[in-house]
Amino acid sequence: MNYPSNIKKEYKKVISHSNRGMALEDLINQSNDFYLQEDIAVIYKKPTPITIVDASFDSHGRVITKAYFKEPSTLDYNGLYKGKYIDFDAKSTQNKTSFPLSNLHEHQYKHMINVINHGGISFLIISMNGNYYYLDGKDIIDFISNNERKSIPFSFIEEKGYIIDKKIRPRLDYIKIIDKLYF
Amino acid sequence: MNYPSNIKKEYKKVISHSNRGMALEDLINQSNDFYLQEDIAVIYKKPTPITIVDASFDSHGRVITKAYFKEPSTLDYNGLYKGKYIDFDAKSTQNKTSFPLSNLHEHQYKHMINVINHGGISFLIISMNGNYYYLDGKDIIDFISNNERKSIPFSFIEEKGYIIDKKIRPRLDYIKIIDKLYF
Repeated sequence: MNYPSNIKKEYKKVISHSNRGMALEDLINQSNDFYLQEDIAVIYKKPTPITIVDASFDSHGRVITKAYFKEPSTLDYNGLYKGKYIDFDAKSTQNKTSFPLSNLHEHQYKHMINVINHGGISFLIISMNGNYYYLDGKDIIDFISNNERKSIPFSFIEEKGYIIDKKIRPRLDYIKIIDKLYF
Repeated sequence: MNYPSNIKKEYKKVISHSNRGMALEDLINQSNDFYLQEDIAVIYKKPTPITIVDASFDSHGRVITKAYFKEPSTLDYNGLYKGKYIDFDAKSTQNKTSFPLSNLHEHQYKHMINVINHGGISFLIISMNGNYYYLDGKDIIDFISNNERKSIPFSFIEEKGYIIDKKIRPRLDYIKIIDKLYF
């Protein structure tokens, strides 16, 4: 089927935008695969939560024919490193001066507090201004508890956060930061 | 809309069968809600993994129009209790004499080994012969490593497992067994 060229361009644009959004997730998934293969840590991305409305059967088995995405009540990644419970999320912003807290839903923030209160390690990996920052959950809670602001200034991330090494294996060595902070 | 009575009965039957299958999952979800509300433990069921084939937009937002269920590579529930990483699954069998190991996929078994090797707690909750049994991952690994059998005899579950108390709050107090074994 041939589309008028302007529609085709529009379609390409959507795809390429979506790929940009996926990049950080891919880097983390590849890092987690590396940690698992090398028997360093056991960390997985949780499946995307959905609400199934309709399902039926086809030649491949049970098929979902209508479902919606649900807002997650926890963070996307969790697992285990050196006996410690690890729970985190990855967020990207194009904003250069601050990280908008609208990126972290209220349920996710409460979950982060619960994890830390029960002895786990929680943090965000923030892609911003060309770097990947590890920002510990304790610093995030500290900031939100003491500020009315709806965004975290980049200066706070630079001061309290840690730049994560970009490598080949693993892509993003965030475990190195956990080692420095917790072991 | 009125259905002929035989069709309506058929429909009811399907619903009630599906509810029976859900019972154990519901009991565990309610227990986890209780543990969370009472600030005892932070344990969630992971969303069901799916592969999205087609999606579009409708008046409610993005809608999945074709997706398949994927075989999970980990166990269904994980979280945190007293600083310890917890990872488990719930399985039901109508079989009275043994628990078929076909219920535990190879990836799930490898995941259980990984969790224990990295200092986490892993187990199965098995619904069998009218009781809910906690069977620790270490005993499951021990059995599978030393047997060619494709099922775990009920006598092994009775000997090594622990009957989980059925209560109102929480429905299934599996944390009590973890307390006994690990704290």
